[in-house]
Amino acid sequence: MTNYTFIDEGINAPLGFSALGESIGIKDCKKDFAVILSDVPCVCAGVFTKNKACAAPVLWDKKIIENGNDVRAVVINSGNANAATGKEGYNNTVITAELFANKIGAKAEEILVCSTGVIGVQLQMDKISAGIEANALQTGKDRKSAKDAAQAILTTDTFIKEYAMSLNIGGKEVKIAGISKGSGMIHPNMATTLAFITTDALISKKLVNQCLKEAADLSFNMISVDGDTSTNDTMFLMANGLAGNAILNSENEDYLLFKNAVIEISKRLAKDVAKDGEGATKLIEINVTGAKTEKDAKMIARSVSTSNLVKTAMFGRDANWGRVLCAMGYADADFNIDNVNLTFESCAGSVLLMKDGAPVVFDEELALKVLTEKEVFINILLTDGKAKATAWGCDLTYEYVKINGEYRS
Amino acid sequence: MTNYTFIDEGINAPLGFSALGESIGIKDCKKDFAVILSDVPCVCAGVFTKNKACAAPVLWDKKIIENGNDVRAVVINSGNANAATGKEGYNNTVITAELFANKIGAKAEEILVCSTGVIGVQLQMDKISAGIEANALQTGKDRKSAKDAAQAILTTDTFIKEYAMSLNIGGKEVKIAGISKGSGMIHPNMATTLAFITTDALISKKLVNQCLKEAADLSFNMISVDGDTSTNDTMFLMANGLAGNAILNSENEDYLLFKNAVIEISKRLAKDVAKDGEGATKLIEINVTGAKTEKDAKMIARSVSTSNLVKTAMFGRDANWGRVLCAMGYADADFNIDNVNLTFESCAGSVLLMKDGAPVVFDEELALKVLTEKEVFINILLTDGKAKATAWGCDLTYEYVKINGEYRS
Repeated sequence: MTNYTFIDEGINAPLGFSALGESIGIKDCKKDFAVILSDVPCVCAGVFTKNKACAAPVLWDKKIIENGNDVRAVVINSGNANAATGKEGYNNTVITAELFANKIGAKAEEILVCSTGVIGVQLQMDKISAGIEANALQTGKDRKSAKDAAQAILTTDTFIKEYAMSLNIGGKEVKIAGISKGSGMIHPNMATTLAFITTDALISKKLVNQCLKEAADLSFNMISVDGDTSTNDTMFLMANGLAGNAILNSENEDYLLFKNAVIEISKRLAKDVAKDGEGATKLIEINVTGAKTEKDAKMIARSVSTSNLVKTAMFGRDANWGRVLCAMGYADADFNIDNVNLTFESCAGSVLLMKDGAPVVFDEELALKVLTEKEVFINILLTDGKAKATAWGCDLTYEYVKINGEYRS
Repeated sequence: MTNYTFIDEGINAPLGFSALGESIGIKDCKKDFAVILSDVPCVCAGVFTKNKACAAPVLWDKKIIENGNDVRAVVINSGNANAATGKEGYNNTVITAELFANKIGAKAEEILVCSTGVIGVQLQMDKISAGIEANALQTGKDRKSAKDAAQAILTTDTFIKEYAMSLNIGGKEVKIAGISKGSGMIHPNMATTLAFITTDALISKKLVNQCLKEAADLSFNMISVDGDTSTNDTMFLMANGLAGNAILNSENEDYLLFKNAVIEISKRLAKDVAKDGEGATKLIEINVTGAKTEKDAKMIARSVSTSNLVKTAMFGRDANWGRVLCAMGYADADFNIDNVNLTFESCAGSVLLMKDGAPVVFDEELALKVLTEKEVFINILLTDGKAKATAWGCDLTYEYVKINGEYRS
């Protein structure tokens, strides 16, 4: 099924897409303005935060996606979330879309807007306006433009998250590309997670929605707690159809190939967001297998991935598996505690800590080695059924406290 | 309604109660063994963790409470939670109850057992056994015995939590006393919270249950997230009837006096647990008023009290009220964002940050002063209805990460 190849390109890799990332002065010096533009209208799917205090751009974008509008571009600013900004904030989003639409000769309703950064401060519209005026027509197809865009959407992230792949759909080359940001923190009640996926595949509106939903559920929703989302979380999949493939409009093999590729890109982006968790020193992957239902597996995996006590133990390289069990126990999931088998694993080895619900004597020295690695797997094997799930998280460190104790000031 | 007086006594203040706290070698040197004993059988109510991975003593105690047994004593060890210890762990709890019952001439089914400490390690039964043998008959009525008991149940707590009060019920003096511990961390998915309340009031089994449930809901359940409980959380209310008051068996004025006193003690204990949060530098009280329903008020208050981002902002003395709004937004509660009014308050003053859902220009210097205090109030005034709730939490600090990164090792 994996007929895709990763390529060293960015968000503008698919035919007809261009991008830019610039500094327009919302942040001091740093890049804070990005555009992803398609030459032709795209079908576009979106998933959004469920937070009742959702940000102005989310309200705007939801309307566009729900109306099923074709979309030409996403305009993104970092440094200011335009959240908790009331009517003025919403108007500022609309003005942003209008200004950009005017510049490129499109309708405002074809322009998605995303913001990320501090909550509760009005956007400096003079800077947005000047930024659009100066840059809207400067999107590029080159590698630098893509990197700039991936950079400009970041807030406290320490590296850009960018993947692109090529695959063959019925004899035609199709490209899929994605960029993402976290606020660094791994579960979006703490963060704004933004993710943008572009493709030149020709695909029906129905399937583009279905595909994004499935991909989000297996990727970004597994680095989050359901409902526990920030004010701004947003993910888009934009497809402009320029690849010339036979349209994907039924769940045939070609669609499955495409969907798996989108899922793979989404997972990589989500893992990168977890890995770049604020202050994080390691990526933690929680694999639950043998659960009664997929929901049980997901809830258990998420609960472990978001436990502060598990996260601090991982930081301290402490094989305190009791905390894993405790987090499993308060997950909203059904499992038999006598069927719990638990191992910590990394490239340094694997340590069995619990077998059939009872503690196992283990090699503390090996455990320390396992937990010293940059990527640690917490494997939870149940014998309740056949369902499985994977979640990602990171450790909780001094640096996290530092970053978040000082963020605004 | 407040006819109670706080008195400088401890858990053994009510007639017929005695206590002890000793070191029996589970922890190095520190006190790790406590007993609360009543000369005569008590009616007893209990509330327990909902964690599916609940500890052996919880299973034992639940049976006793559900059967409605009269109770003579609670035997507590710290240093080891006897959780995730399988059948052997459960047997160890039963043996503990049996050994103690034999020593005092009671039935095992009259002895409650609590454990707190590390998960997944079997109790050292030789130490428990020798500890009971040497100490079971040494409970005292004096002040030192009470303090020792309050001390012996602690884990990473930095101070003992102990209150006692005297009140007049129909011309008779009734005493109520309580002790508690947290693992320091404020919400019990992170902690073992234990709380014991003794009284010499004569009260029916039905009302003792009702009273404890109400008190727990307004106190310990407001420093926790529902369902998000640790393996060992337990709270008991033991009433031995020796005060000689006319039995409290209907919801008359005397019962309400008694209930309010129990609620007051429970709140003080719970606030102390929040205040002593691991690594905490300040107590945070979240007051929600004007919510549509009490459930909405509670969910909003809890969500804010448990947000890592709010907690780190409080540590950093950063008036980043957007994070409060964000945490309100992902609470499982209904509210109108245009009706949100938000102030931060402490003994240094009060700062309005949000009015009718929109940000307000505020004095940053004053905000810094307000947040520098040891006790900070986050006041959320809605205009959706008349319901209110209060929750308590603490800030998230470097020290928290340190304590929990190094706890087991």
